Amino acid sequence: MEISSWRHAFKLDPAKTISDESLERVCESGTDGIIIGGTDDITLEGVLDLLMRVRRFTVPVALEISSMDAISPGFDYYFIPTVLNSSSTKWMKDLHVSAIKEFGHMIQWHEMIMEGYCILNPSCKAAIATEADTSLTEEEVIAHAVLAEKVFRLPVFYMEYSGMYGDPVLVNKVKRNLDTTQLFYGGGIDGPDKAAEMAAIADTIIVGNSIYDQFEEALKTVAAVKNSHATY
Amino acid sequence: MEISSWRHAFKLDPAKTISDESLERVCESGTDGIIIGGTDDITLEGVLDLLMRVRRFTVPVALEISSMDAISPGFDYYFIPTVLNSSSTKWMKDLHVSAIKEFGHMIQWHEMIMEGYCILNPSCKAAIATEADTSLTEEEVIAHAVLAEKVFRLPVFYMEYSGMYGDPVLVNKVKRNLDTTQLFYGGGIDGPDKAAEMAAIADTIIVGNSIYDQFEEALKTVAAVKNSHATY
Repeated sequence: MEISSWRHAFKLDPAKTISDESLERVCESGTDGIIIGGTDDITLEGVLDLLMRVRRFTVPVALEISSMDAISPGFDYYFIPTVLNSSSTKWMKDLHVSAIKEFGHMIQWHEMIMEGYCILNPSCKAAIATEADTSLTEEEVIAHAVLAEKVFRLPVFYMEYSGMYGDPVLVNKVKRNLDTTQLFYGGGIDGPDKAAEMAAIADTIIVGNSIYDQFEEALKTVAAVKNSHATY
Repeated sequence: MEISSWRHAFKLDPAKTISDESLERVCESGTDGIIIGGTDDITLEGVLDLLMRVRRFTVPVALEISSMDAISPGFDYYFIPTVLNSSSTKWMKDLHVSAIKEFGHMIQWHEMIMEGYCILNPSCKAAIATEADTSLTEEEVIAHAVLAEKVFRLPVFYMEYSGMYGDPVLVNKVKRNLDTTQLFYGGGIDGPDKAAEMAAIADTIIVGNSIYDQFEEALKTVAAVKNSHATY
């Protein structure tokens, strides 16, 4: 299944613990894909361990690259974040230049999916780590989405509220300004109601932390998305 | 004529003076296009004056946008620089976000051509103005070209040596690393020999300062490019 058809994905953090039984239920939940990614303490061992455990199931699995030290072959897809609202070029392109310099000859570009991140929760780890300017006005968030689609032709624009539920009205405004770029929404989806609400707006919703915090509710987000219809 | 077919362009600086007779010879030279653009003292009056004078001829004319205050309708194309080796996000995307915020609803995106600049002459005005990191190694310059093509899918990668003649060996290495992105070369082309040399490597060469410094030699670059063949 192509990423462009994904409506729901679970994001698993290699630095966190999940039991075999829970992992099986996540992988067999009917979600469209598993994304392996996190911000802190990402190690190659952690990534490989999780990859091997997820590979027992048929669900597609993508690695979201956050550290050059934790990249491995064997994934179906690789997500490459570029933080569009970072105030440093480091998170927008310097790390990418370094990676191309070191590994460019090995990179299979057709497996790489560029994500234009817009990080919107000022207190989340990713915002702090990437020096994101989270004080954007609505118009500026929309302008970043247009930048992603029209200037940089990124296939994905990712509104990341990690740890906090975002504003559906703003997410909807962003969606209405995108023609071809796929809108990912992540953050604060702690159960089926919020999943259904955001899935009616964004192209794809990402459920992460709640897997670790409210497992049963997190699982219910899959069915909620499948049953959701655009209402905006 | 599509930009992708351009082999030669003259870049005219609205802040500099050119006689009507010289302008006619530039426009009727057989060049593929005229680019109006500069770094310092760019005013709307200067841009409009030059546009009106160039419009008397049939040559295509593009505006390279360097200042939000000097944008006008009436051009065939608009080039939008994003300085990939800037050490500030300002020149890479902040100005673009501001422009989209202010003018986004009016922008005809199909007329906009994004240029991924890599500014390589440390002492040129553009390098200083955009805080460009001109100390790149060969591998880093190549990595910026790959970044332009594979990460940001920019239609143009522009090696800008403004005021200085670049290294044909490096330009050739960059060219060999690009599949679809068009390679612009600019800088130090003061006559037909250098024009022929760089035109044999880059997709498009841009002749700027020499129009003002060595007019007759500059004009000869058009024929030199038409007669050049890839030798690398």
